[in-house]
Amino acid sequence: MTIQVFGHKSPDTDSTGSPIAWAWYLSEIKGTPAAPKLLGEPNTEAAFVLSHWGLDKPEIISGVDADAPVVIVDTNNPAELPAAINDADIQGIIDHHKLVGGLETKGPIDIRIEPLACTATIMYKMMGKDIAQAPKGVKGAMLSCIISDTLEFRSPTTTQEDKAIAHALADDLGVDIAELAEQMFAAKSDVSAFSDAELLRMDSKEYEVEGTKFRVSVLETTAPKIVLDRKDSLMSSMTDVAKEDGVDQVLLFVVDILNEEATLLVPNDLVKTVAAKSFDANAEGDTVVLPGVVSRKKQIIPNLKL
Amino acid sequence: MTIQVFGHKSPDTDSTGSPIAWAWYLSEIKGTPAAPKLLGEPNTEAAFVLSHWGLDKPEIISGVDADAPVVIVDTNNPAELPAAINDADIQGIIDHHKLVGGLETKGPIDIRIEPLACTATIMYKMMGKDIAQAPKGVKGAMLSCIISDTLEFRSPTTTQEDKAIAHALADDLGVDIAELAEQMFAAKSDVSAFSDAELLRMDSKEYEVEGTKFRVSVLETTAPKIVLDRKDSLMSSMTDVAKEDGVDQVLLFVVDILNEEATLLVPNDLVKTVAAKSFDANAEGDTVVLPGVVSRKKQIIPNLKL
Repeated sequence: MTIQVFGHKSPDTDSTGSPIAWAWYLSEIKGTPAAPKLLGEPNTEAAFVLSHWGLDKPEIISGVDADAPVVIVDTNNPAELPAAINDADIQGIIDHHKLVGGLETKGPIDIRIEPLACTATIMYKMMGKDIAQAPKGVKGAMLSCIISDTLEFRSPTTTQEDKAIAHALADDLGVDIAELAEQMFAAKSDVSAFSDAELLRMDSKEYEVEGTKFRVSVLETTAPKIVLDRKDSLMSSMTDVAKEDGVDQVLLFVVDILNEEATLLVPNDLVKTVAAKSFDANAEGDTVVLPGVVSRKKQIIPNLKL
Repeated sequence: MTIQVFGHKSPDTDSTGSPIAWAWYLSEIKGTPAAPKLLGEPNTEAAFVLSHWGLDKPEIISGVDADAPVVIVDTNNPAELPAAINDADIQGIIDHHKLVGGLETKGPIDIRIEPLACTATIMYKMMGKDIAQAPKGVKGAMLSCIISDTLEFRSPTTTQEDKAIAHALADDLGVDIAELAEQMFAAKSDVSAFSDAELLRMDSKEYEVEGTKFRVSVLETTAPKIVLDRKDSLMSSMTDVAKEDGVDQVLLFVVDILNEEATLLVPNDLVKTVAAKSFDANAEGDTVVLPGVVSRKKQIIPNLKL
């Protein structure tokens, strides 16, 4: 039975490219048939990466059958996976996020979680010498994953291993990292086709602080103005999105990749308090700039206070 | 701050030896001070292994402080760890059991779980060339862990990797595996000092089948007669142990390592039904022999029915 390899429900570049890389490795090197899948529509950067490297868009699936063999990548959080995930035959987990608890497996399986910026970096290490056999599209997808998750090495999540492996892949492919990054970030910044609600949910994780539930949303862009020009309608749709998703407040951080700063929208006093207590930032109007903040994992979530 | 490295609350050879090996690796190779700890008194085999290789018995701790740095080995089950484990600073997990769910970490950490027979086998792979620098005691402890968890390669959990690594360590140390295994198993079989309740809890895991809670206890021995001669008092103490531990029934499997079979004690109709439905075994008296059954993980737990 073909193993389905997938990441989380909001497919960014890493959750789109890493399943492609790992399904290749399982099928072609390990001899165990595997296919990449998506749990949702890839974001604009991931869509660009697929087309840039001539890769087919993986099939989008809405759930998994009981006992179906699966490998989960780029998450270990049941909330970001199909509801019945624990009934599937989970055969492996490759991830770089904190252990959330909640996934259960029927027997001992291969689990590899490392504090690196990107799932593809871990896969590269696991593949060892076999990476040499990977087709250009797989190597290109893996390079793009690392560029995306590290924001071209700007994110504080970046490790020496992520950097070294990205450069090894780029050298092998004869690719200019800066040029590829520019194209990827331009694709990610093209958010014109999305509704306000879609933008608020595009790259979002729920997080609770002292009983208050936040949807912590991030939009990484090289053109923050395009998003910030929509701030009034974004803020007004926060109420509906929060209500529909059962959280108390949406926090939207517009991350300016090139200038390495985030702008937090401040629709009310609750978010004003969050800005002050979490980031020592005094919001005068309905936005506040947070210099140096680009990573939800390293800089936003660990500091969130109320 | 020194990292505390420990396994589960019923320290067998793997949960005693693997922390010693990993604490050596962290301290001497990685340059991060670490110390092995125990969450209980080592069993007789583990105590023999410590003395055989001239290793100090690690300190027994009863709990961990909040934010104390720890590395967990040979389990990922919070029930087998200190109650406040999720408040500690869990820096790594190395294990070969199924993912139970329940452990949570504050950030992304190193987690390595593989379906191998023994934690020490995974550590050997992770150490790479650095294993050459390990002192004799560390190498000896790792070899003993593999011999113990594979029952000298008899257990169906044994993989080619466990075997190959055990032989590499034995060659390096100039050790005869059969001779060391005999001494270890003799030590494990010497259970005269333990009370019935201690024997029932010595190597035991809780497992629920359709709402009925079992304590699934295994005693691996080369001298099953010593244990079976005590079967009447063992069965009569099952009721108290079950009550005290909040389970419905204790199942005791006396595993004859050399003859590769288990004898299940059958104190009542419930266990008689378990024997019939799980192992197709018709218990006539108060014991039933299960030919070929030696592994709780591979043969007992997955088959348990009611």
